[in-house]
Amino acid sequence: MAPPEKIELKKQAQQLIEQYDNFLFDCDGVIWLDEKLIPGVLETIEHLESQGKRFAFVTNNSSKSRDTYIEKFHRLGFKGIGKHLIYPTCYAAASYLKEHLKVPAGAKVWVLGDHGIETELKELGYIPVGGSDPRLDDEFHPQHDLLKVDPDVRAVVVGSTKAFNYMRIATTLQYLLHENKSLPFIGTNIDRSYPGPEGLILPAGGSVVNYMSYTSNRDFIDVGKPSKRLLETILEQRDFDKSKTLMIGDTMYTDIKFGNDGQLGGESGGSLLVLSGGTKLKDLHHLIENPASLQDGPSLIPLKYIESFGHIIHLLSN
Amino acid sequence: MAPPEKIELKKQAQQLIEQYDNFLFDCDGVIWLDEKLIPGVLETIEHLESQGKRFAFVTNNSSKSRDTYIEKFHRLGFKGIGKHLIYPTCYAAASYLKEHLKVPAGAKVWVLGDHGIETELKELGYIPVGGSDPRLDDEFHPQHDLLKVDPDVRAVVVGSTKAFNYMRIATTLQYLLHENKSLPFIGTNIDRSYPGPEGLILPAGGSVVNYMSYTSNRDFIDVGKPSKRLLETILEQRDFDKSKTLMIGDTMYTDIKFGNDGQLGGESGGSLLVLSGGTKLKDLHHLIENPASLQDGPSLIPLKYIESFGHIIHLLSN
Repeated sequence: MAPPEKIELKKQAQQLIEQYDNFLFDCDGVIWLDEKLIPGVLETIEHLESQGKRFAFVTNNSSKSRDTYIEKFHRLGFKGIGKHLIYPTCYAAASYLKEHLKVPAGAKVWVLGDHGIETELKELGYIPVGGSDPRLDDEFHPQHDLLKVDPDVRAVVVGSTKAFNYMRIATTLQYLLHENKSLPFIGTNIDRSYPGPEGLILPAGGSVVNYMSYTSNRDFIDVGKPSKRLLETILEQRDFDKSKTLMIGDTMYTDIKFGNDGQLGGESGGSLLVLSGGTKLKDLHHLIENPASLQDGPSLIPLKYIESFGHIIHLLSN
Repeated sequence: MAPPEKIELKKQAQQLIEQYDNFLFDCDGVIWLDEKLIPGVLETIEHLESQGKRFAFVTNNSSKSRDTYIEKFHRLGFKGIGKHLIYPTCYAAASYLKEHLKVPAGAKVWVLGDHGIETELKELGYIPVGGSDPRLDDEFHPQHDLLKVDPDVRAVVVGSTKAFNYMRIATTLQYLLHENKSLPFIGTNIDRSYPGPEGLILPAGGSVVNYMSYTSNRDFIDVGKPSKRLLETILEQRDFDKSKTLMIGDTMYTDIKFGNDGQLGGESGGSLLVLSGGTKLKDLHHLIENPASLQDGPSLIPLKYIESFGHIIHLLSN
């Protein structure tokens, strides 16, 4: 496998834009860091738009609904980004229940996670339980009502939440063990950590999913990146030609694997790592030098990499 | 491998007691369930004592110090159980820092866990930080003082706590990532869940350890069962002949593996599963029928099993 190409010249930036028609973006670490837009990204995306390129945003974050994402995009200066272009994993989870598991509308779904999951479940006609129920902030005691399984619950969705506490963990475990572990267990993502404000690396939603998987001794259905089902949904709904699509992200084991396993960009490949988020150049070098250290090492190596996606407009204007 | 022998006759009970000189007991699910003594266990252990047998208690629970365990044993009617007979993993963690890692007394140690860990660290001269610090109950915000790494911390100990929240997780992650992940990371145990009050299966400390391992992408030093280091420490300190020692527990992947991997009981073997805790007969059958489903399947199968350890006194008095 060829080492990834570093994009650092105007010509390379031009070539990148010519090569692809469709651009799939991760958000945290690519478009923004927390509430701060990454310099140049807005201008680069506006440039892509002016060239007739199409795009969509795919985030493993499950905390915010598509409506909340739209507000954030607008707040940061992006105009005309519609709901249909945004794929957070809270939406992916709700869609999966409906499209793949055929859970009927009106069913209750137990949620460990933030408002985004509840909002998207409601949009598809489900009744979220658990989630932001204030009783889940109570101190744990074994006689608590919420520890009794509601027999009408038909599935469990686990995602990111900073409101992680023993009541939420213990109640969710009861649903995961219920009826011989037969309720479907959807996890929104596998992210271990993310680059947060103040330069902090902070625990991410995948760690919550993994906690529940470990304590229940169950596998989960991963609806986030790098899962192929999410990619198929997006390509189909957006009518993107896979061979002309590029995935742009800052995390190798989710974003880059998503693009590579999904065979984006056809034979040339279609994954671009940006170094503006959680992955640093030394991490990429480490991976290239030790591919065998990871079972799926090769699929984590990007086709190309660049300082930040915003750097493109800078290169183009030189 | 021969299937495990079910102990259900007086003769088998007598033989069991003759075969071994030393008895290592798990506590939760073997001696008690929460605050309730398991029937017959006290009488059986008194009988062993009268026969000159020796014993020790080895629990993967890290929440309570040895002193707190002594109080519980006394409260439940056990007399004359000294501190030296009790091995909770909070003690194992502190000992490991001292004996194996040679961390000098006076050093600070970051704790994610309950009082037991703090108490045992203090007994060995360490200064626990984190742990029960009330500021860890604050709502998470990225400017919080506790997110700044204290450079004097020399190791991290993670164990069971019901006070699991994002502040504790995020602060602990900073220490685990600090200086290129170089601070020693001790995990007290790998238990996924435990049989709690009201018939509930509840998340156990190993799930906390596993969470921190996942989010930091680091392995940890496991000082609990089935780790061999803990067994070696006990056999040495108690001067138990390994070939004459039996491990009694209710969890196959910790207790039984501990006895089997540790080659207790010599060639005959030395592991006894009790069905009074988290493992049911169907779980044992499932394991025997599907040993290949677990990488270390054979080492999880007990030599013998019995309804409960208290059943022995019942069999003997028939």
